[in-house]
Amino acid sequence: MWNSFASNGAILAGKMLIMPMATGFFRQRNGSFANTEDALGAGGIVTLQDDDVERVRRCHRNDMEGIYLHLIISGLYTMTNPEPRLAQKLFGLYTMSRLAHTIVYCWKIRQPARGISWFVGYGIDIYITAKVITHFFKQL
Amino acid sequence: MWNSFASNGAILAGKMLIMPMATGFFRQRNGSFANTEDALGAGGIVTLQDDDVERVRRCHRNDMEGIYLHLIISGLYTMTNPEPRLAQKLFGLYTMSRLAHTIVYCWKIRQPARGISWFVGYGIDIYITAKVITHFFKQL
Amino acid sequence: MWNSFASNGAILAGKMLIMPMATGFFRQRNGSFANTEDALGAGGIVTLQDDDVERVRRCHRNDMEGIYLHLIISGLYTMTNPEPRLAQKLFGLYTMSRLAHTIVYCWKIRQPARGISWFVGYGIDIYITAKVITHFFKQL
Repeated sequence: MWNSFASNGAILAGKMLIMPMATGFFRQRNGSFANTEDALGAGGIVTLQDDDVERVRRCHRNDMEGIYLHLIISGLYTMTNPEPRLAQKLFGLYTMSRLAHTIVYCWKIRQPARGISWFVGYGIDIYITAKVITHFFKQL
Repeated sequence: MWNSFASNGAILAGKMLIMPMATGFFRQRNGSFANTEDALGAGGIVTLQDDDVERVRRCHRNDMEGIYLHLIISGLYTMTNPEPRLAQKLFGLYTMSRLAHTIVYCWKIRQPARGISWFVGYGIDIYITAKVITHFFKQL
Repeated sequence: MWNSFASNGAILAGKMLIMPMATGFFRQRNGSFANTEDALGAGGIVTLQDDDVERVRRCHRNDMEGIYLHLIISGLYTMTNPEPRLAQKLFGLYTMSRLAHTIVYCWKIRQPARGISWFVGYGIDIYITAKVITHFFKQL
């Protein structure tokens, strides 16, 4: 179960490491920068309205809202003595839902694809958080 | 102390899980979406100016700035052999300050209510971080 | 190695704790606030366009994208039985790169200074994440 947690966590971290590359790619291609010193060097303009850049940044922010929370609460969940097979399935399913979420978001696939991919991961975190709360409160 | 850390962490995670629900509620009610594919399906518009939505998002970002940092540094703090009762009180007080902060932020209660609720949690993290730095540097 | 992880983590947390102070300083000095209740009390205006404030906030968001991810993946890395001296050097170099990044960002030092300081930390995280993935997948 711990190996499952760690390998899923590392895949999710690796996925998140791709986001700055995607942001940088669109900034360069579209000449849309957030800082004057960046725009100067690359011959672009300062704008926070570039749709390609902002879409990747919204997806990246959604990762910070979702994945960081998931890894923290899942780390606590591994200490609540859960059924190992269930935990492994939850961790794997969460990773798949987030990979799907990123693809759907960045390729602008129409709804409800993004809603569903997001909600699978969100539902898992609701379950895990409830389990962690009940487990540790019983021991207080 | 570890149980106190874990249960407080789970409550804070649970609190953060409410934020996307609040964002989604105001997006639907006000018809204000960040993505064209979302606005199309729901008959709304694309805007980043909706005050209800942006207020919840600012509160959510403040959670990411504060709560994630707190859980990381508090996790290290539990390994510095602190006085258990003090640690429990700090963890509990932090949780209360963040719950108050969210309520004050989202209900637009006038200052200095939000400033105070925020500062209690911030001060606790300054103290904990200083303790962790001094503890682990002594052992280097 | 664990002491190195913990002390570097605490320094990075301490660095991040300075960011809200910097944001608040510029908000007060320039009278630029994000919330009406804050502007009312301080005699300022509500704006998301203040360049000083937004620069600190971009730097702070970059910290959340980078430092949180680093601490999560580095925590897993300490469990992969890495060569201790290498791990210590990576953790220390990452901390230095992020301290440099903040200074370069907030003082508007011209490119490629920020790009380089950012990329050192990013490259370290690519390496660490790859190591963690290969380690834990072998054990699955």
